[in-house]
Amino acid sequence: MKKLINEPADVVDDLLAGMSAAHSEIRVDEKNRIVIRADAPVAGKVGLVSGGGSGHEPMHAGFVGRGMLDAACAGEIFTSPVPDQILAATTAVAAGAGVLHIVKNYTGDVLNFEMAAELAAEAGVEVASVVVDDDVAVQDSSHTAGRRGVGATVILEKIAGAAADEGRPLPEVSAIARAVNANSRSMGVALTSCTVPAAGKATFALGADEVEIGVGIHGEPGRKRAPLAAAREIAEMLTEPILADLPFTRGDRIICFLNGMGGTPLLELYVMYGEVSRILCSHGIEIARSLVGPYMTSLDMAGCSVTLTRVDDELINLWDAPVQTPALRWGV
Amino acid sequence: MKKLINEPADVVDDLLAGMSAAHSEIRVDEKNRIVIRADAPVAGKVGLVSGGGSGHEPMHAGFVGRGMLDAACAGEIFTSPVPDQILAATTAVAAGAGVLHIVKNYTGDVLNFEMAAELAAEAGVEVASVVVDDDVAVQDSSHTAGRRGVGATVILEKIAGAAADEGRPLPEVSAIARAVNANSRSMGVALTSCTVPAAGKATFALGADEVEIGVGIHGEPGRKRAPLAAAREIAEMLTEPILADLPFTRGDRIICFLNGMGGTPLLELYVMYGEVSRILCSHGIEIARSLVGPYMTSLDMAGCSVTLTRVDDELINLWDAPVQTPALRWGV
Repeated sequence: MKKLINEPADVVDDLLAGMSAAHSEIRVDEKNRIVIRADAPVAGKVGLVSGGGSGHEPMHAGFVGRGMLDAACAGEIFTSPVPDQILAATTAVAAGAGVLHIVKNYTGDVLNFEMAAELAAEAGVEVASVVVDDDVAVQDSSHTAGRRGVGATVILEKIAGAAADEGRPLPEVSAIARAVNANSRSMGVALTSCTVPAAGKATFALGADEVEIGVGIHGEPGRKRAPLAAAREIAEMLTEPILADLPFTRGDRIICFLNGMGGTPLLELYVMYGEVSRILCSHGIEIARSLVGPYMTSLDMAGCSVTLTRVDDELINLWDAPVQTPALRWGV
Repeated sequence: MKKLINEPADVVDDLLAGMSAAHSEIRVDEKNRIVIRADAPVAGKVGLVSGGGSGHEPMHAGFVGRGMLDAACAGEIFTSPVPDQILAATTAVAAGAGVLHIVKNYTGDVLNFEMAAELAAEAGVEVASVVVDDDVAVQDSSHTAGRRGVGATVILEKIAGAAADEGRPLPEVSAIARAVNANSRSMGVALTSCTVPAAGKATFALGADEVEIGVGIHGEPGRKRAPLAAAREIAEMLTEPILADLPFTRGDRIICFLNGMGGTPLLELYVMYGEVSRILCSHGIEIARSLVGPYMTSLDMAGCSVTLTRVDDELINLWDAPVQTPALRWGV
């Protein structure tokens, strides 16, 4: 294992210390491993809380700030945050308008966020939840009952964050978040495994000329192993099942998100984006907005994922609204 | 070689096609392989032109847009752009106030930008040049006489771009660019080699427990091979020589740029940032601004580099000024 880390057991604390040192728009509660918007709680605003296992940076802590999340809970690498942590984040950002939990569909995350929501309710904080489950690759998986939550999480946190920033009430912010999830589909591919620091060895084995189509963000198995192919063929293997699933149809406008898994450089992501955009064009689907880069990584895994979100004018306006976080920043 | 590409010979064209599809703030001259600000030429503004070998994305094309570059010339992978290309970019953005060439110190780049500047002068365009040479690792190298130009390029393009955006004249923009270079120092480390697509195999060999301290962005040899060590030790190996070189002294304010080489995820970059910031603090150096991420990559190389730029209020204000490019975006 070759990584720029100190002791594997300290990697999450070291990550949070580095983020805290780099970004003034966030503060870090080191004891609870929560990253919080520096000016939280924001009076009268719905609070947005997300979180999950670490190892997917910049998600979620890099999305904390104005116009996106109010707090993110960092679990151990690929391990759900615990209910106490989520409860602490929820009460830290509650400002009288309720709190929305944004939960990726992994069994541990769902259970722990549910428990935290119950505890928060007992403490007098109104909590709503949205579960993200956009991965079309497989129905159930090693960490998940149902579909896994992947790239749509980034799109959803941006759009719901903008709705909350506008001062919309909790039911409306929740409905917008659910609409984003309902209109999003994703699929990923791995060229290499990732390596969990505490394990010290690759999570799974792939042959020198093999790729895993439909891989999960923790290295869970996908749909199939396939021989390494040209970008245009891999783009088809990812995009066509996404388009067929919703289904997306001619005339749809979308946000096209080409995500890097951590070990793949931007050069390759742009090559892939070019191929995906060509496929979308051939289907008469209009790319209204795009996002290209490593926003939801899987440690050092080489690979990428494609997320398509069908949008209308309202969702585009919320996407375009100001955001000021470590990883996404515009309009301010 | 496992990469998300089509034919290796097409990788630069495919990259530019993908960037063009993804970003409306730029347009691509495919024939000349130039990325140009969509609204260029901007009347009365000094034009900023940079470029170099491809394989370092988002640099330089990802820095084209309001408040940064007017055009970027994309060479083949790790190969200088040719004079005709640079001349075409220069004339495309010339708007009566002259053009500044920003050139990383590699022999081919320097020669080709010089020749293009002469041709542009013959065509009636006033051109000034700044050569970036911030890498403290080695004096000469396989691609370079003198010190190599690395991470300071990103800082310089942002700050000089802001000065040009304010409407400052060419001598002033040039002087600011030279001040940034004079006050910047960098050093990098590789954990793995990169693989040039056309070569199909690793550029250099590193043992399973070895790192290359002071590596160049094309895989050029650095100062030494060292055993893989904790992030805090590697941070010292990079930061102490940088601090000693300028030298930086107690009370200096700096921009601290922790750059990813392409194959290293953000998790590790933040761990490294935390260690570098601790060292800076122990020297009494104040981090005024920070930048963390893969902004000047070396294909799929795993590793990172540290760039420190000493700044005053004027340079900080220029750093904070609005920028709207594919890779850096704030204030608009």
